[in-house]
Amino acid sequence: MAKVEVIEVGPRDGLQNESAILPTADKVRLIERSVAAGLRRIEAVSFVHPKRVPQMADAEAVMERVPRPDGVKYAGLVLNPRGLDRALATSVDEVNVVVVATDEFSQRNQGCSVEEGLRNWAQIAEDARAAGLYRTVTIAAAFGCPFEGEVPTAKVLDLIRRITESAPDEIAIADTIGVGVPAQVRALLDGAAEIAPGIPLRCHFHNTRNTGYANALTALDHGVSALDASTGGFGGCPFAPAATGNIATEDLVYALDRTGLKTGIEMATLTETADWLADRLNSPVQALLGRAGPFPTPRKEETE
Amino acid sequence: MAKVEVIEVGPRDGLQNESAILPTADKVRLIERSVAAGLRRIEAVSFVHPKRVPQMADAEAVMERVPRPDGVKYAGLVLNPRGLDRALATSVDEVNVVVVATDEFSQRNQGCSVEEGLRNWAQIAEDARAAGLYRTVTIAAAFGCPFEGEVPTAKVLDLIRRITESAPDEIAIADTIGVGVPAQVRALLDGAAEIAPGIPLRCHFHNTRNTGYANALTALDHGVSALDASTGGFGGCPFAPAATGNIATEDLVYALDRTGLKTGIEMATLTETADWLADRLNSPVQALLGRAGPFPTPRKEETE
Repeated sequence: MAKVEVIEVGPRDGLQNESAILPTADKVRLIERSVAAGLRRIEAVSFVHPKRVPQMADAEAVMERVPRPDGVKYAGLVLNPRGLDRALATSVDEVNVVVVATDEFSQRNQGCSVEEGLRNWAQIAEDARAAGLYRTVTIAAAFGCPFEGEVPTAKVLDLIRRITESAPDEIAIADTIGVGVPAQVRALLDGAAEIAPGIPLRCHFHNTRNTGYANALTALDHGVSALDASTGGFGGCPFAPAATGNIATEDLVYALDRTGLKTGIEMATLTETADWLADRLNSPVQALLGRAGPFPTPRKEETE
Repeated sequence: MAKVEVIEVGPRDGLQNESAILPTADKVRLIERSVAAGLRRIEAVSFVHPKRVPQMADAEAVMERVPRPDGVKYAGLVLNPRGLDRALATSVDEVNVVVVATDEFSQRNQGCSVEEGLRNWAQIAEDARAAGLYRTVTIAAAFGCPFEGEVPTAKVLDLIRRITESAPDEIAIADTIGVGVPAQVRALLDGAAEIAPGIPLRCHFHNTRNTGYANALTALDHGVSALDASTGGFGGCPFAPAATGNIATEDLVYALDRTGLKTGIEMATLTETADWLADRLNSPVQALLGRAGPFPTPRKEETE
């Protein structure tokens, strides 16, 4: 079992679906707290149209104020060439380009068909490479679509094949609506490794139906190099019905730690951040570690 | 991947730690609803001292009123020979005898050391066999102890070796406080299969730190024949701090169904039962399926 990187997506996916719009200063604070906890890759912003997702409207302002310690990389989500132009005008290190696996969800999420999404990716890939950015491509709804239902593994693998023609630096497979199970994780990751040898594979899971952590821990055994998570387990997609939170960073780190995969990420800092964020968003923490407490439980000092 | 049996433990583990004490009629209703959903093995009662766990005081009355369709088996939890005497005076088909893996938790849970627990098991095993009951032995705190911390796999496997001297019909490995991870599941199940060849292995998981479903789905690939779950995800141990619910029957059945393991258990009946139970207990449903809804989502009929 190889080392896995935990990518904090709370500032982007965690906030985009909350009814409260966090002030820029709080978003920066969330990112600072994530860095302080030991996270080194952070999806900080989304360059989506501000009228479509007002929660992400201040992407440029956020990127102007994030801390810049050595070794910390920031990514911005990009849905189309216009989003890339905005990203290029900021200091993001990475772009995460979304290609949705089904036409209806793609239309609702980013106003284009799957084929148009692939063409967008090809153009963005070229321009972002020219600008020296690390380019992730995320296949959304890879485990199921809220509108079209089943998404066959073969269809996702075919998308991966076509996406690799523009040589992504990383391929992310996303269960956007939290319907997947470990058997799908195995099939998709094993298939992707064959189709795209040498390209790092990343997974993005939501815990909507309590399969998210099982999926993440299965991915560990099938070559995944990075896992997305959101502190507190906030999150969801504004364009999918009943979408709920990402797997929580603290609960994922707990499971990795107990598995013997030391991440260097401080769970106590994450659980404190989750409580702070819940208060700011007026929305409950979905993660369980903060409520349950660490294990092994620190022994209370015996007193006379 | 073999077929797995889902054992409903909600009437026992689901109710024993709730502050509300359900009337006997509601317990019977919960069992009737579980049977109606398609569950065929139900842990219905606990023969623990009524002063210690008042939630379970009416075990005899519950067993007098449960439905008795063909193929449905009922189990009662037993902690000591006195509990077996009570069980033998009822119509339970199975006894589930608890041996705790650590001394401090064993003392708090059932007032005896681990060694005394093993001797209790040996005596109960003999008497229950003579009475024709199916005998499960559950090793509690097999993944970690709330008081002693780490529980080495080797210690649990040694307990299993000693337990098999009294020939249990089934061995259950329990993560009583919800601290385990899939790597432990693999080690314990693979080790148990070597030590106790031919004896069916069952697992009991709590989702206290969001690893319960990952553990259950990992167990599928390591020879488990039965998994415990509680409708709605209620539950916990009265003698362990911060203990929370079992994995939820509906969320487990969802994952099994999506994995291609058809259980014949109706998810909609389970989610309705969970809502009914939450209302009766004045305690929130922990399961997520009822909130998230089924997948694939049934298409609304198009109307003009």
